[in-house]
Amino acid sequence: MQEILIGIVGAGTVGGGVIKILGRRIENLRQERGLPIRIARIADKDPKRREQLASFGAICTADAQDILDDPEIRIVVELVGGTTFARELVLAALGRKKHVITANKALLAEYGPQIFEAAARENVSVYFEAAVGGGMPIIKALREGLVANNILSIKTIINGTCNYILTKMSREGVTFAAALDEAQKKGFAEADPALDVGGGDSGHKVAILASLAGGGYVPFSSISIEGITAIGKDDIAFAAELGYTIKLLGIIKKNGDDDAIDVRVHPAMLHARHILASVSDVYNAVLLEGDAVGQILLYGKGAGELPTASAVISDIIDVAHNISCRTGVRIPMLYYSSSREMPVKPIESIEGRYYLRFTVQDKPGVLASIAGLLGDEGISLASVMQKEGFPQKGVPVIMLTHSALEKNLRSALTRIEAMHYIKDRTQVIRIEE
Amino acid sequence: MQEILIGIVGAGTVGGGVIKILGRRIENLRQERGLPIRIARIADKDPKRREQLASFGAICTADAQDILDDPEIRIVVELVGGTTFARELVLAALGRKKHVITANKALLAEYGPQIFEAAARENVSVYFEAAVGGGMPIIKALREGLVANNILSIKTIINGTCNYILTKMSREGVTFAAALDEAQKKGFAEADPALDVGGGDSGHKVAILASLAGGGYVPFSSISIEGITAIGKDDIAFAAELGYTIKLLGIIKKNGDDDAIDVRVHPAMLHARHILASVSDVYNAVLLEGDAVGQILLYGKGAGELPTASAVISDIIDVAHNISCRTGVRIPMLYYSSSREMPVKPIESIEGRYYLRFTVQDKPGVLASIAGLLGDEGISLASVMQKEGFPQKGVPVIMLTHSALEKNLRSALTRIEAMHYIKDRTQVIRIEE
Repeated sequence: MQEILIGIVGAGTVGGGVIKILGRRIENLRQERGLPIRIARIADKDPKRREQLASFGAICTADAQDILDDPEIRIVVELVGGTTFARELVLAALGRKKHVITANKALLAEYGPQIFEAAARENVSVYFEAAVGGGMPIIKALREGLVANNILSIKTIINGTCNYILTKMSREGVTFAAALDEAQKKGFAEADPALDVGGGDSGHKVAILASLAGGGYVPFSSISIEGITAIGKDDIAFAAELGYTIKLLGIIKKNGDDDAIDVRVHPAMLHARHILASVSDVYNAVLLEGDAVGQILLYGKGAGELPTASAVISDIIDVAHNISCRTGVRIPMLYYSSSREMPVKPIESIEGRYYLRFTVQDKPGVLASIAGLLGDEGISLASVMQKEGFPQKGVPVIMLTHSALEKNLRSALTRIEAMHYIKDRTQVIRIEE
Repeated sequence: MQEILIGIVGAGTVGGGVIKILGRRIENLRQERGLPIRIARIADKDPKRREQLASFGAICTADAQDILDDPEIRIVVELVGGTTFARELVLAALGRKKHVITANKALLAEYGPQIFEAAARENVSVYFEAAVGGGMPIIKALREGLVANNILSIKTIINGTCNYILTKMSREGVTFAAALDEAQKKGFAEADPALDVGGGDSGHKVAILASLAGGGYVPFSSISIEGITAIGKDDIAFAAELGYTIKLLGIIKKNGDDDAIDVRVHPAMLHARHILASVSDVYNAVLLEGDAVGQILLYGKGAGELPTASAVISDIIDVAHNISCRTGVRIPMLYYSSSREMPVKPIESIEGRYYLRFTVQDKPGVLASIAGLLGDEGISLASVMQKEGFPQKGVPVIMLTHSALEKNLRSALTRIEAMHYIKDRTQVIRIEE
């Protein structure tokens, strides 16, 4: 059988991991699977990296065009990141009927329809296991293992940086800034952490999961996203006192009758007994509910050189299997198209319970006033906690509401925040059951 | 494209679930996947079941031979269980070049090589996602999603009946017999629970997982298996007091230099902080460690009509994809053969920590004598607990050892149990880190 040649564009952390693991596993894979795969070319702009790879046996090049131009290469692995050059590269590879494997969540979340439509036109595949959840085979589970199911909901901790920071704040009582600083020192956060802590990275992954679970395209731009930068160490402490943990959660819910899908990313309070509450440090988890399978949890490291490389290699093997049986597209992605866009439920129309932290002037009648203004919007309280010993800005008053419509909560908050006794922005964290 | 016809043998709980779910999903699967699948024939001996299925549109028959004899049927789904008729049926189907899907863990654990060799000879596939872990896609994860990894270890809670019983004993302080009785009333345990509570069912599943993870055939008969029938409510209580939980665990470990694989099923004490300690009720979990991916956990319902049917249907879709691209065998199982048998490490040669509960006569010097006899075998103690108020048979003395060789522990126990102050069989539970 003819060799199946692979070109890798980007030999950084993940690319390096792919090359390292394939190096030691390739003979075994050839023998066990009968797949004669070989990394033929590696493109990287960094001459030092190319030098380090010289002994590997592949042709190293600075120019990805060499990979596109090699007619023998059937699989292009895109590991450069970003959405400009990566998009051009992926579209060019597909245009030459090369299969594409990518770990690029931003690219798929923002340009998924264009990419999957191009692939369908050319009858080649785009595989992307590494784009969501590192080494956890969540994409394969959704596309294959759970194919019998209507996915009713997904709740996920899908950004290791945020989870590390929140875990550290929770365990050590430090501020967000201190925890971020520590994460950066340990290499768990980028020098520019905005995409992680702002929730954008989680949003990219959740957009992909929602499109797979929903069976229609969920545009990244339609998702409501909040990050963790506004979470105070007091919020973490108050949550713990009430029996809750704060996590950055991606939430996807399909409601029986509703055409619109509920998709959002925001900090959420989880009861300490919730299965996701114990997912700590840089670990990720995806809790999904299917109508047949019930609740399933996948848990593992969502990032890092080797876990992510593990996912890329499983894609390489899948595509090599397809090539060896002359299949262009094994699992169609026809629904991931602009013409099959799924409406996303506006955040104002969601219903749930809320944690509210007001910062108020310490004087009689304030608590009654707030409770009254919430009551005017039909929002009732499940518990109230007022703390002593916060002299600086005002006194914190914590309220947990019963189930309420977000729209009504926002109306009430607008009225409450206009009151003279409010001394600071009110903290609102949704409670997830 | 030609229709892909399916024959189902056995329309009991799982078979009924497959028919129910496929009934409501088939149009969607045909459209999204382009797979023209159809259940053409259903065989079941029970005339009532056949009557109930009359409206479904498939030809119902009492005789599975009708399915074998139908040359149009490409996929046979075996859901009868047992290893006699089921084995004949599966081999006959393979002999006629039909692909087989089975949920039958006993069949694969005990006759796997014969079945996979027959399939390879005829260039057809045997898929078996439903045989291990119900709806959790663990077989797919091992064969595909984690293909880049050398699987270093698997620790699994893989029998829902046992986990329900142990959870109930732990939460309510009841005896094994009482918890089993409750499990039977709730339909979580069979009328004859021996295969579950004796560890055999876990052993079947662990044999399959070990063969997949080890890359060689691990015979069921070579696995050391202990069930949960000897776990006393006192053991559960003492374990809790020491910060541990008792679970029935399947354990698979590959040691770097060692050719032999460590595979066993037995009750194990897990520290309360261990991720598997919180897996409760009928839930299953598989914790695996790969050299690339690190730790991965899958968690879900390991049994039941719809979860198991979910797994069977994912196999149907996989095989249908193979048929539609004219692939007989996508993922070879060449290693699952008698000629590739993996040696299993004798249980005497494992090393670990132990929980020991001695039942002794309450008199001076006993504790010193036991500790001395353990010490003679080089076994030192991490903690000792002697309890008051157990007047019937003798006084319980609980010891946790430091790491010891099982062989040495057994020698010591033989000598200790010969002492006149020992009043009952000594309880030994391995501690798993």
